[in-house]
Amino acid sequence: MIDAAEQTFLDLAIEQARTGWQEGGIPIGAALVHDGEVLAVGRNRRVQMGSAIRHGETDCIENAGRLPARIYRGSTLYTTLSPCFMCAGTAVLYDIPRIVIGENRTFEASESWLASRGVELVVADDATCRSLMDTMIAEKPELWAEDIGEEA
Amino acid sequence: MIDAAEQTFLDLAIEQARTGWQEGGIPIGAALVHDGEVLAVGRNRRVQMGSAIRHGETDCIENAGRLPARIYRGSTLYTTLSPCFMCAGTAVLYDIPRIVIGENRTFEASESWLASRGVELVVADDATCRSLMDTMIAEKPELWAEDIGEEA
Repeated sequence: MIDAAEQTFLDLAIEQARTGWQEGGIPIGAALVHDGEVLAVGRNRRVQMGSAIRHGETDCIENAGRLPARIYRGSTLYTTLSPCFMCAGTAVLYDIPRIVIGENRTFEASESWLASRGVELVVADDATCRSLMDTMIAEKPELWAEDIGEEA
Repeated sequence: MIDAAEQTFLDLAIEQARTGWQEGGIPIGAALVHDGEVLAVGRNRRVQMGSAIRHGETDCIENAGRLPARIYRGSTLYTTLSPCFMCAGTAVLYDIPRIVIGENRTFEASESWLASRGVELVVADDATCRSLMDTMIAEKPELWAEDIGEEA
């Protein structure tokens, strides 16, 4: 579980996920927060931008712009879904020390690796995050397979 | 060592690295090749696009567009420099089975992890790749530190 302040940041990620779904995209969102300040939000934009690298977390980190190493190293990344290896690797590259994960029941790949690299993981098991993913996987299974590099 | 055909693909990545340096950027380039066909090339565009996620390999994969999983799974990624964890994670996400690395003397972080994930790595130890990096690290050490998430 996460406290009310952290839920507020996760809610920003959820709002991004909802926006992405309304755009016809994949409903995964993220927020990057440093010392209580929201540096950026982002969402999966595979469909919207025809992108292979704009997952929720990477889009968020891109939207934050070029940051000094010390900022990443004091930040928490909020994401509606457990990170794929691309997004996990991005967090490891920048030494982001903490990731709050909306849910990991519909997808989980990188958590043991992230933990082995010293990243603190908090899983909120948020019902809204699960519902967004369940709906998408049921309605657009080919799109979801593409997003995680699997054959449909 | 790599054969002449593979050197041709690595040379495309080197050409991208040179272009990036001429643009004032970080001289790292990449090419994605499937069955002898070049799907895309790319280069680090941190400076050119103000980007935190456009490394040589991720820019190349983005430039290739949305591809079916089977294409990634039959491709080789050529890169002038040993991949950081973001780029390594991207290769793992898409199950790219083979990476040809121009050089790994100036930077190496992910190779043992990639090997543990079953990715075949070939290190060319190319003198041109090393020279491009040596020049950049000497002339722009702060930029290089930023690119790999370190304090300058």
